[in-house]
Amino acid sequence: MAEEQPNSNTVAQEADQEQVVDPWSVSGGADGRIDYNKLLEQFGCSKLTEELVERVERLTGRPAHPFLKRGIFFAHRDLQEILDCYEKGIPFYLYTGRGPSSEALHLGHLVPFMFTKYLQDAFNVPLVIQLTDDEKSLWRGLDIDEARRLARENAKDIIACGFDVSKTFIFSDFEYVGGAFYRNIIRIQRCVTMNQVRGIFGFTQEDNIGKIAFPAVQAAPSFPDCFPHMFGQRKDIRCLIPCAIDQDPYFRMTRDVAPRIGHQKPALIESKFFPALQGESGKMSASDANSAIFVNDTPSQIKDKINKYAFSGGGATVEEHRAKGANLAVDVPWKYLNFFLEDDAKLATIGEEYSSGRMLTGEIKKELITVLTDLVSRHERARAQVTDDVVDAFMAVRPMPCI
Amino acid sequence: MAEEQPNSNTVAQEADQEQVVDPWSVSGGADGRIDYNKLLEQFGCSKLTEELVERVERLTGRPAHPFLKRGIFFAHRDLQEILDCYEKGIPFYLYTGRGPSSEALHLGHLVPFMFTKYLQDAFNVPLVIQLTDDEKSLWRGLDIDEARRLARENAKDIIACGFDVSKTFIFSDFEYVGGAFYRNIIRIQRCVTMNQVRGIFGFTQEDNIGKIAFPAVQAAPSFPDCFPHMFGQRKDIRCLIPCAIDQDPYFRMTRDVAPRIGHQKPALIESKFFPALQGESGKMSASDANSAIFVNDTPSQIKDKINKYAFSGGGATVEEHRAKGANLAVDVPWKYLNFFLEDDAKLATIGEEYSSGRMLTGEIKKELITVLTDLVSRHERARAQVTDDVVDAFMAVRPMPCI
Repeated sequence: MAEEQPNSNTVAQEADQEQVVDPWSVSGGADGRIDYNKLLEQFGCSKLTEELVERVERLTGRPAHPFLKRGIFFAHRDLQEILDCYEKGIPFYLYTGRGPSSEALHLGHLVPFMFTKYLQDAFNVPLVIQLTDDEKSLWRGLDIDEARRLARENAKDIIACGFDVSKTFIFSDFEYVGGAFYRNIIRIQRCVTMNQVRGIFGFTQEDNIGKIAFPAVQAAPSFPDCFPHMFGQRKDIRCLIPCAIDQDPYFRMTRDVAPRIGHQKPALIESKFFPALQGESGKMSASDANSAIFVNDTPSQIKDKINKYAFSGGGATVEEHRAKGANLAVDVPWKYLNFFLEDDAKLATIGEEYSSGRMLTGEIKKELITVLTDLVSRHERARAQVTDDVVDAFMAVRPMPCI
Repeated sequence: MAEEQPNSNTVAQEADQEQVVDPWSVSGGADGRIDYNKLLEQFGCSKLTEELVERVERLTGRPAHPFLKRGIFFAHRDLQEILDCYEKGIPFYLYTGRGPSSEALHLGHLVPFMFTKYLQDAFNVPLVIQLTDDEKSLWRGLDIDEARRLARENAKDIIACGFDVSKTFIFSDFEYVGGAFYRNIIRIQRCVTMNQVRGIFGFTQEDNIGKIAFPAVQAAPSFPDCFPHMFGQRKDIRCLIPCAIDQDPYFRMTRDVAPRIGHQKPALIESKFFPALQGESGKMSASDANSAIFVNDTPSQIKDKINKYAFSGGGATVEEHRAKGANLAVDVPWKYLNFFLEDDAKLATIGEEYSSGRMLTGEIKKELITVLTDLVSRHERARAQVTDDVVDAFMAVRPMPCI
């Protein structure tokens, strides 16, 4: 595990800071905030530079997604190699996923899918989406049939993001593990010891053996021969994984194993976390309805949650606010607008007005309510079109010669 | 893990004795021999009594198999419950397996299959046979395609034992893991910690995570809903596992997990080991051609191996032998005849003549050569009938309403 070794042993946890980022928990340092530069250094990934973003624009001939321009996707591994491939006409595919632990997705869950949809359109490439219903059974003790049901429900929200069915394969582990996929799982498991998953994920002797073995299940779809119906036996197709940075440990492991089993390393493009309503102390929790806006929240729920819970960086009184302005660095409405208000000019104006104190907290919240109500209602309409037949179409193991 | 806890921690390994019996290694105590009574006590299984053997005869209306009468299958767990079921007309099924690590089976490998064939005929019950090609990849580093090939080759030798295709499903893990089987694997993995597999199997931090998770793969077929094409969703069908006693740790674990996931515990009927030609120091090794008779050995190979390598309990000289007789307790030809000479009267006569010194080592070896040459040539003829189509028929996931 030499090359990909992070700088600390149990990954992003250091004694002097309390910042903890792993696939199951995210909590900030002493000030409650995530130090993303520290994460880059600890995980050993590269900063996504402006030059790279410009190269993406040049190659795809379309403007970069706001998540790219605004540094929400901020880190990567080997993205330049994927762009080299694209430039030379060598095919690649996208791989992302979700652990189905809740009935509906929240806005944070949408982030990687919205971005992946942009990448699929911009590069015109195939996409595989893994629903780790097995993971949720192993970690949350979720009943297996319930996990399968949630996987299908979540698939509807994912499909509503607009993926191209002719180039997208969605699978749940409980349905798709087996065959070529299972053979790759075993190939990976053979290369990884208990000691290594202890180092990478912090597993202990008390953890169940399913958890200990699971990282190979999330690693395997990084290799194209898991999908013979899409790629035949081809091993030369590179994989690019858009995900939140907390998933990096899985793919650090995958990248170490890849050359040992005759595969290329997957490349990564990684995002910051979408903050909870209560503030940027980490990821939102699907189990706390008031910590997040869900894609099935009603307009009045959206309004209430934002007005009631969204942490404000504005002044304590109107007078103080007018005098000192808002602290954008901790203001949740401002952060949310950075994710979801597409209009760059409008966003800049709001930032100026609000930070100078001319715009009040109530006013920025009102802007946000409009943006999110619109987003959620568009999502709702799209999801209503996703019938069971549509889900079946995306999840069918079918001939899909998409490269 | 209360009820099924063995009396020592790393199972059958005690400091004062050197006897080690686990699924990967078998070695005797200080005298090189296996103390089977000690094993019974350490593993916590029950002795297979004469009363039980008589009950099997009474219920099936046919004489017990020589392996039963002669104490080769000597241990069990809950066999009486299976017989209770059978008596009441409640269905059960048989489950056995093989790790495909060699091109051809040796005689020791045949023992559980010959016995399982007898059980299938006597009780007229369905049977599932697991080929753990994944296990062999994880432990022996066997290339995955090579393990799959060996699984198919071994299936031919297994089928040649005479199983009823209308009631027998043979599967390899690389082909069949998935669906209902995978869901049971996860259910089991969720109930077993690293600490527990360390205690049961002696796994360490240096072991790969595939090994650590594998016990659930061998456990799962103990539950009938792994085979919806055979048993639908039924959970009320008991499972009886004929195997060598070294597999007991797997099923001790399985029996502990069963009630926690709403299943009945599998019952077991367990055999002693078939000794190596060089003596009863444990199991034969498929990797040492001279330690065993293989089912594809020629008559002259059989003759040579027995004459050259079969450890004799006879006297050092003819005079000594005539005076003191043979020591049957260590004599390999005698032990082999106990496995494979069906004629009880003839076996008794040989035992008497040989132990008294009237029969010489060369003579008992000649008897054995005749018995094994006949056995192997019958196997060869049966195997020649096993075409690829026949293998496909046994391994097809097919509607099989056999209960």
